[in-house]
Amino acid sequence: MSKHQADFSARLTAVRSALKSAGVDALWVSQPENVNYLSGFSSPEDAKALILPDAAWLYTDGRYTLQAAQESAIPVFIARSPETLQHAAPLLSGLKVGFEMQHLTVAELGALQAHWPTEPAPLSGVVERLRLIKSDAEVQLIEQAQAIADAAFAELLPMVKVGAREQDLALALESAMRRLGADGPAFETIVASGVRGALPHGRASDKVLAEGELVTIDFGARLGGYFSDSTRTLALGEVSESQRRMYTAVLEAEETALAAIKPGVRTADLDALAREVLGRYDLADAFVHSLGHGVGLNVHEGPGLRSTSEEVLQAGMVITIEPGVYIEHLGGVRIEDLVLVTDEGSRVLSHSPKERF
Amino acid sequence: MSKHQADFSARLTAVRSALKSAGVDALWVSQPENVNYLSGFSSPEDAKALILPDAAWLYTDGRYTLQAAQESAIPVFIARSPETLQHAAPLLSGLKVGFEMQHLTVAELGALQAHWPTEPAPLSGVVERLRLIKSDAEVQLIEQAQAIADAAFAELLPMVKVGAREQDLALALESAMRRLGADGPAFETIVASGVRGALPHGRASDKVLAEGELVTIDFGARLGGYFSDSTRTLALGEVSESQRRMYTAVLEAEETALAAIKPGVRTADLDALAREVLGRYDLADAFVHSLGHGVGLNVHEGPGLRSTSEEVLQAGMVITIEPGVYIEHLGGVRIEDLVLVTDEGSRVLSHSPKERF
Repeated sequence: MSKHQADFSARLTAVRSALKSAGVDALWVSQPENVNYLSGFSSPEDAKALILPDAAWLYTDGRYTLQAAQESAIPVFIARSPETLQHAAPLLSGLKVGFEMQHLTVAELGALQAHWPTEPAPLSGVVERLRLIKSDAEVQLIEQAQAIADAAFAELLPMVKVGAREQDLALALESAMRRLGADGPAFETIVASGVRGALPHGRASDKVLAEGELVTIDFGARLGGYFSDSTRTLALGEVSESQRRMYTAVLEAEETALAAIKPGVRTADLDALAREVLGRYDLADAFVHSLGHGVGLNVHEGPGLRSTSEEVLQAGMVITIEPGVYIEHLGGVRIEDLVLVTDEGSRVLSHSPKERF
Repeated sequence: MSKHQADFSARLTAVRSALKSAGVDALWVSQPENVNYLSGFSSPEDAKALILPDAAWLYTDGRYTLQAAQESAIPVFIARSPETLQHAAPLLSGLKVGFEMQHLTVAELGALQAHWPTEPAPLSGVVERLRLIKSDAEVQLIEQAQAIADAAFAELLPMVKVGAREQDLALALESAMRRLGADGPAFETIVASGVRGALPHGRASDKVLAEGELVTIDFGARLGGYFSDSTRTLALGEVSESQRRMYTAVLEAEETALAAIKPGVRTADLDALAREVLGRYDLADAFVHSLGHGVGLNVHEGPGLRSTSEEVLQAGMVITIEPGVYIEHLGGVRIEDLVLVTDEGSRVLSHSPKERF
């Protein structure tokens, strides 16, 4: 058995055990990254999976016949709905089957009910919970993706200067990531300079970087289905005292949260810690999003790092720490690192330099 | 009233009329491109909209406070769920509200039911049906996106030669599209050469183009939220008789379908027409997908052009015509044009040259 097959075999064993605990025998998997996780099929947005006690099926359509045969670790059935549901129906006879209520649409549930012998049961996060803890092979891919992103950012740095256009910087960074081996960017690169920095998700525009501005660059690479995610904010020449103060506050919040990462810590407490630091600078209200999120087959996945999160850090989780402050007409600062939670505490996977005033 | 506001005002009028026909007073909009269509907000994956008889709301979170204020044609309420649902609840008192059953998840429906005074009703395709017919402004954006894609492809052509790596071609094409003004690629560019051409969705790999191969390049640009989509298959030097025959068959199928486009034609009949041409070459079984699809705020939207489609062409629709044949161990051919259905028949929006043997 190849290493590849062994990985998927372990994942099937784990999901079957989780299904047993959830009181069902089988799972209809419609969340694309979950389909990928359980089968290895790299176009899961056009696929579903069925996990049974003694079997598993990947369902996709005729466009992917060859690709699915090459990639899938589980048997493939080529059809479109409702043929897929009809194929599954007899296999479910006498079994209790669950579906992913956070992903399955109301229309899709109607189709399952119309074609299957038993009423499917709503489940939440069964596969996502398994995905929280990354295997060594998964960590390796995420770390490689981050290393590519960091190398591309190092190439970009000399171009980040007064007169450069945000869009040109985004394009140069994404091109460098691909040239350095990424499958593509993890998401549309954010380059937000000057007052645009007040937009936490400001896509690169045709704005030109000017003297005395801060510029926030949020970037990531995709590799083998996995993502990296990190952010740096840079100063263009002499910045004002208020900008410098924003930067200092965010950096202190970020480093305080980073230092507190270890197994057993509640993610909500980490979020509170960063917010407390910003509060000392009277900037807590300007921190308009959560502290971070997990990263894996999705750029945003569990665990959440927000005030309402109930998750506790465990070794093998990969998370971002990304406090930010955003002030209309002034601008913004965000600093984000990608971090692996380890038995000892944590290991930061992102290595691009940070400004030091 | 600006032109911009007038567009959105007309859309709200149209959707309210459609809701009345569907027997409801209000609509909870969760499909991202529908949210964009009705509000103009360009990050709709993190937003919802509520359309009421005399009002409309865009719901998004604190990351987008400034962006939503700048972009949205309807009033904005900044919150996360369940606060958004609680804000909506009193507005729905005494009204019948619909939801998008093709998009709303089972978990999201549970949240609506928990927070709202009335049981929401499942609806299908209400906004999507309005989006089928493009306004002049929408056609202009799609045509501009296609013009950028064609110009980038013209730049790429001299690089498509023996020894080039598929990934490098994809990167060069996507970079050129951005440099020429696109917001980004419409999707991950497909470059599939030689035997890889048998993968209809073959992502660009590290394979190098070789003498005597066919190479299929499927590419599109994104501009102002709209997409282009077209495909060309090129020959590298002398190709075999069987490859030439595949190409000739697909080109004939494509041109036959193109010539038949006009208002009133059933899309299923167009699909059958292309399949009939390929059947004369004994290649109908190698055409493993549908003839095409609509293009707009989604790369793939209505109308479908497949054997089971029930749609009829109308002036103002923008569709692709993309027959293809795929043969394992031999390769594949796909030729795709982007077409506007007009009162007179059609206007092809894609202008990249096709091989002529």
